Amino acid sequence: MRSFYNTRDNIVSDALDGLIAARGGEVVRFDRESHARVVLRAGWDKSKVAVLSGGGSGHEPAHAGLVGPGLLTAAVCGDVFASPSVDAVLSAIVAVTGPAGCLLVVKNYTGDRLNFGLAAEKAKALGLRVEMVIVADDIAIGDAAQPRGVAGTIFVHKIAGYMADAGQSLDDIVAAVERAKRDLVTIGAARDTCTVPGSPKHERMAAGEVEIGLGIHGEAGVELVRPQSSAELVEVLSARLLTRLNPSARYALLFNNLGGLSGLECSVLLADVMSSRLKDRIAYVAGPASVMTALDMPGFSLSLLELTPEFEEMLLAPTGCPALPPFVSVRKTASIAAPAISQTEAWTPSADAAVRKVVETIIETCLAMESDINELDAKVGDGDTGSTFATAARAASRNIEMLPFASGAALLSALGEIKRKAMGGSSGVLFAILFARAAEAYGERKDWVGALGAGVEAMQKYGGARIGDRTMVDALRPALDALAAGGDLKAASVAARTGADATARMLRAGAGRSSYLDARSLEGIKDPGAEAVARILEKLASV
Amino acid sequence: MRSFYNTRDNIVSDALDGLIAARGGEVVRFDRESHARVVLRAGWDKSKVAVLSGGGSGHEPAHAGLVGPGLLTAAVCGDVFASPSVDAVLSAIVAVTGPAGCLLVVKNYTGDRLNFGLAAEKAKALGLRVEMVIVADDIAIGDAAQPRGVAGTIFVHKIAGYMADAGQSLDDIVAAVERAKRDLVTIGAARDTCTVPGSPKHERMAAGEVEIGLGIHGEAGVELVRPQSSAELVEVLSARLLTRLNPSARYALLFNNLGGLSGLECSVLLADVMSSRLKDRIAYVAGPASVMTALDMPGFSLSLLELTPEFEEMLLAPTGCPALPPFVSVRKTASIAAPAISQTEAWTPSADAAVRKVVETIIETCLAMESDINELDAKVGDGDTGSTFATAARAASRNIEMLPFASGAALLSALGEIKRKAMGGSSGVLFAILFARAAEAYGERKDWVGALGAGVEAMQKYGGARIGDRTMVDALRPALDALAAGGDLKAASVAARTGADATARMLRAGAGRSSYLDARSLEGIKDPGAEAVARILEKLASV
Repeated sequence: MRSFYNTRDNIVSDALDGLIAARGGEVVRFDRESHARVVLRAGWDKSKVAVLSGGGSGHEPAHAGLVGPGLLTAAVCGDVFASPSVDAVLSAIVAVTGPAGCLLVVKNYTGDRLNFGLAAEKAKALGLRVEMVIVADDIAIGDAAQPRGVAGTIFVHKIAGYMADAGQSLDDIVAAVERAKRDLVTIGAARDTCTVPGSPKHERMAAGEVEIGLGIHGEAGVELVRPQSSAELVEVLSARLLTRLNPSARYALLFNNLGGLSGLECSVLLADVMSSRLKDRIAYVAGPASVMTALDMPGFSLSLLELTPEFEEMLLAPTGCPALPPFVSVRKTASIAAPAISQTEAWTPSADAAVRKVVETIIETCLAMESDINELDAKVGDGDTGSTFATAARAASRNIEMLPFASGAALLSALGEIKRKAMGGSSGVLFAILFARAAEAYGERKDWVGALGAGVEAMQKYGGARIGDRTMVDALRPALDALAAGGDLKAASVAARTGADATARMLRAGAGRSSYLDARSLEGIKDPGAEAVARILEKLASV
Repeated sequence: MRSFYNTRDNIVSDALDGLIAARGGEVVRFDRESHARVVLRAGWDKSKVAVLSGGGSGHEPAHAGLVGPGLLTAAVCGDVFASPSVDAVLSAIVAVTGPAGCLLVVKNYTGDRLNFGLAAEKAKALGLRVEMVIVADDIAIGDAAQPRGVAGTIFVHKIAGYMADAGQSLDDIVAAVERAKRDLVTIGAARDTCTVPGSPKHERMAAGEVEIGLGIHGEAGVELVRPQSSAELVEVLSARLLTRLNPSARYALLFNNLGGLSGLECSVLLADVMSSRLKDRIAYVAGPASVMTALDMPGFSLSLLELTPEFEEMLLAPTGCPALPPFVSVRKTASIAAPAISQTEAWTPSADAAVRKVVETIIETCLAMESDINELDAKVGDGDTGSTFATAARAASRNIEMLPFASGAALLSALGEIKRKAMGGSSGVLFAILFARAAEAYGERKDWVGALGAGVEAMQKYGGARIGDRTMVDALRPALDALAAGGDLKAASVAARTGADATARMLRAGAGRSSYLDARSLEGIKDPGAEAVARILEKLASV
């Protein structure tokens, strides 16, 4: 099962159940027992013109997802990429058509034209007023006798749906949509074909190749390009579109994801469109969104409708279908300056011999243990913990004359910034958090132990490490607890050593560098961070 | 270029431009010059609590597309799948935080926790009120010390965004989201990994394999399954979810497309969910929609939030972000009976010797020319045009005693249905259209030539063939024109013959079977349909 479904025969009917489940009672379907797969507005009273569309499935949310106030009255769903039957279309027409009549919006494919066409003729024979508009917006094949109907059809749905809801006559609606379909162009591009449920995937394009002008059923494109950038690709499409635009008109753009393109890429491509030669022509945009898809095709299409004041009003009106994103006025620039945050680290150097001695001892210890700790880390990590500590120590050493030793809060803050910059990565941020919080806490209580305790707590909160997780916390926390309980540095160093040694028996790392290793790799090896902390405290206790 | 972008360095910044272009002035971004990729609400006045989120990019529309009324105040966007910097988060906090304070909503990844965490500490040092909630909703790894934050985070955004917009206090918001994150579970599945722009795709899964519980950055799943149906896959996920649900609670479901799954499959899967053991637990649903994606990953996730009356109200409130579909009340069944359309073909047989003779002559001609026409079609089509005509003729022959020869409209209608059923496919529908329209027209004017002319016109309208397109119209149309101009059958047959012969010089088929062939294949070969029409008219003129 390369695609997700139950049986190939029921895929469309099953999908309609899912679609209806999520529409909150806005739409209903014909019973599964009826072979007509039709979705229609709940409680439709036939007093207004009905707007019907449909065709093969595989274009979701089109067409069933576009049934709702201000859009379609009903959708007739064929099998995947196959037209619905005449009987299905006819039963949909009969279900929704009252005295105001109905409009069939059909994409220009032979099967759809014929099946909807015959259904229309049969409905007329039953005394119903039925008109049909065939949309052929695809400009891919320049001289096509029968251009395909693709995503631009959504504009026709929107216009007809708006007018029908507003109570306008079938004649007026037909006149408007005939104008719209005339002034409507679409071009698409994709970097792969789509996966048709139950069929092997047709691998047509190599990596880097992009087809221009392929159809919404995986039909081959008319041109194969190898663009070096998304902007270059957009330029190819823009050039084709520009040959068909009215130079004095403004346009609305539908940016349609053909199904499998990432949102990130779609947004980049839309930015490219708004920087392309099309940019001054586009007044409104809807999307990027998956509206008329080709299953999971990683591609997109650009549809442009020439605006009239009437179309403008119609496009901007909201619909009851979340699947169609709103048309909004395009913004070309919308940025503000980032706030200036004063982060100048202008510490005023100050002296405190005892504090300076502690800092220097830590620096020396870090430098002395570099290779030992690296060696330990090579067994359970990437072998650089010792160097990371040593790098931070060297940075502190270089800045030693500028440090504010007499001001606890400033000193902690300075050390945090120095470590963050020197260490980089997660460890740098973890130490920065520890020292930033400690600086804040010291400022409140002028208590070294309490301040460092608060710092370690913050480091644990954001870093997620608890006692027993096989991190430096296993040495740091017991040491600070010992100090907080009135113990001296000797007691703290014993607690740190006990904690560090215990990490060798922790067979699962709950956080940090070793959390992807199994018990066998960890057994008997101390956590390098905890060992470093223990050595620092042992050295401090010894001087 | 396997993905669509310009430069790898600018991909996120470019995407933000595209995203903002399509939001109609609702949001703005920090200048591109600022390295902080931050999107925030336009004109935000800081009087209410600000809700910030973000993280690595590649999850679009999350998080930048979720900035708007009732949802996020700002989003901080890192590089693809990489946490934003501390400075970027801090500048976003400073830009949107006023006296009411701000809430950071962070998915449980070390980088995000640390960078948002340090930014929070630094913002506090600047005198701002900042709280942070870490969402860890992924239940994939049963005993994970640090469950990942995935699509369920959207629920936290929605609740916090609603409360902030309603002017509620930071403390109240924190209390609510702490409860929400506790009662929130997500599980995902995918049938392939994602394409990371600029990196080779990691082909991990074979066709038919599905990973359960993979992460939103392409991290491997915890279990590999080979489900035989989508319902079986949903059952695997439901079983995992059910172990975590409160048996007496009702839930809201977010059906999240991880990016590359087709809408068709998503709807089938949602239908499966609504038929699974979860069905009675789910009161509301949002989606299927791509909300928290993993680039173009063809997969989905199910997120469930335990409802309280307050959460229910909050979830149902609209937001200003089209990227988040509305939560709606789930409907399990919503179908109506298809209308009964009387299509019994109970023609009353009646006699008209002259008309019967015409019909019989046509039948004989079709049978006689079967192999000739097939031979012609073998050169420009699939070699069965003669048989298609003969099949229809045999069906008419079988029904000859039941035909209403004395009633023109009924006869045309009957012949249309007989041909449609016997011929099948496009030709059957085309003839059915011709005869249905002719029957309708005959009823109005009792004029055979006029009626058939109207029929051919309808066939051309729906079938799309014009004179010169190398179809049977090239013989039919001139023949009917000759009759309409007062000519006799002889004149009509000459016109048909001239038209049919001319098709051999038409080097491009504008419609129908030969439209995919080139000039060389067509030159000198008559269109089989036009030839058949000419032969029928020649025979009619000769008797």
